[in-house]
Amino acid sequence: MISNLSTLLIGEKINTSRREIREAVETRNAVFIREIARKQAEAGAHYLDVNCGTFKNEEEIMTWLVEEIQDEVDVPLCIDSPYASVIEAGLKANKKGKPMINSISGEEARYEAFIELCKKYDSKIVVLCMDDKAGIPRDAEIRLQIASRVINGLEEAGVGRDDIYVDPLVQPISTSTANGLAALEVMEKIKQMYPGIHITCGLSNVSYGLPKRQILNQIFTVLCMKAGLDSLILDPLDKRLMSLIIVAEALLDKDPYCFRYLKAFRQSMFD
Amino acid sequence: MISNLSTLLIGEKINTSRREIREAVETRNAVFIREIARKQAEAGAHYLDVNCGTFKNEEEIMTWLVEEIQDEVDVPLCIDSPYASVIEAGLKANKKGKPMINSISGEEARYEAFIELCKKYDSKIVVLCMDDKAGIPRDAEIRLQIASRVINGLEEAGVGRDDIYVDPLVQPISTSTANGLAALEVMEKIKQMYPGIHITCGLSNVSYGLPKRQILNQIFTVLCMKAGLDSLILDPLDKRLMSLIIVAEALLDKDPYCFRYLKAFRQSMFD
Repeated sequence: MISNLSTLLIGEKINTSRREIREAVETRNAVFIREIARKQAEAGAHYLDVNCGTFKNEEEIMTWLVEEIQDEVDVPLCIDSPYASVIEAGLKANKKGKPMINSISGEEARYEAFIELCKKYDSKIVVLCMDDKAGIPRDAEIRLQIASRVINGLEEAGVGRDDIYVDPLVQPISTSTANGLAALEVMEKIKQMYPGIHITCGLSNVSYGLPKRQILNQIFTVLCMKAGLDSLILDPLDKRLMSLIIVAEALLDKDPYCFRYLKAFRQSMFD
Repeated sequence: MISNLSTLLIGEKINTSRREIREAVETRNAVFIREIARKQAEAGAHYLDVNCGTFKNEEEIMTWLVEEIQDEVDVPLCIDSPYASVIEAGLKANKKGKPMINSISGEEARYEAFIELCKKYDSKIVVLCMDDKAGIPRDAEIRLQIASRVINGLEEAGVGRDDIYVDPLVQPISTSTANGLAALEVMEKIKQMYPGIHITCGLSNVSYGLPKRQILNQIFTVLCMKAGLDSLILDPLDKRLMSLIIVAEALLDKDPYCFRYLKAFRQSMFD
């Protein structure tokens, strides 16, 4: 089993936009879902994301998924939906540690309700830097303004800074080559403005429209870690990506005595 | 042939500490030296480092190497020695474009003489963050003080900032896990304090004492590029490292329209 990394890893695999998960849910194949949950936990995931947004009866499916997963593994869950009713169904069913809400934004439809849920269920929460007016703003400054408004709202409601994970929402470099740097700049500024806050990212969007996306995603992960990213939504079974995170943690002084690096070497993670 | 990268690449291969180069020099095998020079130039090197420090008649060998290399390729040379007499021999023989001196430091033995040579031969110059008193200082602040003294000395002598390449001298993370971050901090601060200056690095030292050094060196290169590094002393025939630099340049907005990334993809650089 892999070491417990410094970067908070959220396993992304239980998402019904993936065909195999959708089919397993349709046939209520709990064995398959549990196996995917277990494999991600064994690979080092600290949280498991659960998203069943492709189903109409999302609340019911969310409850079923959360119950099945938590009968199999002890890692807490990241309840992933834009709808408060689905989030609450997941949070209600949660029994294993502090849950995470994925995600709040400046959008009116979720803003108040998600703050309420975060407080009520003593939850961690992902903050997306977007709102109704600006959509996903190109400008780093506007993203910072949106993030600030949501962070302030959460803090005023009593949510601790250590429970807040800001996702700058990286845009593809294929549409504008400045998009990568813009996301890195948001990360750095947020870290400066709100010491103790966390940065997370679903970063595969950066490579959209380009060939060989995997290497772009891997290297962007490393760049984000330098910019303050300390959480990732990823496939923990992606050995190459996981090994790069281990290497970057060693180089960024997040791995005392290079202990985890050396352990990963002995486990042939770099072969 | 590879695209002209934004990062200034200094080919490291012509160094008599490498057995094959030492043997070629001993037998005056100009064909072999010229081939190594041509291959590095074709692989995208902007400068070729020339170091014959293992020989007692270093001035004579330096002159011979510079003449042979410049008969073969048009790229300018980076004359690499701690001795002013060897540097001057190389600079005198140089005919192709602005040369580079590798390297000045705060050490008294080279300080005045190297500033003089840099001016006299209108040369670029690498600045090492060390001096007689502190050696290679652990502390980022002391390295900055040494760099400042040398940079100020060069500027007072009329050397342009665009011709100065600061090497923070990275130390192994195996001796202290903070060493990687310390080097990155020096890079960032130097860039802030002296806008327009360049940062270079012979970075393989970061992984000294650890297994699987190559992946540590590769990922540290990416981290350094984020911290402001815009020049590298490297083996340009290392396809994996070169491809990572191309990827990092695309992500850091140094590759308009991702042109070089896409060209590298078509040339199967990422396979």
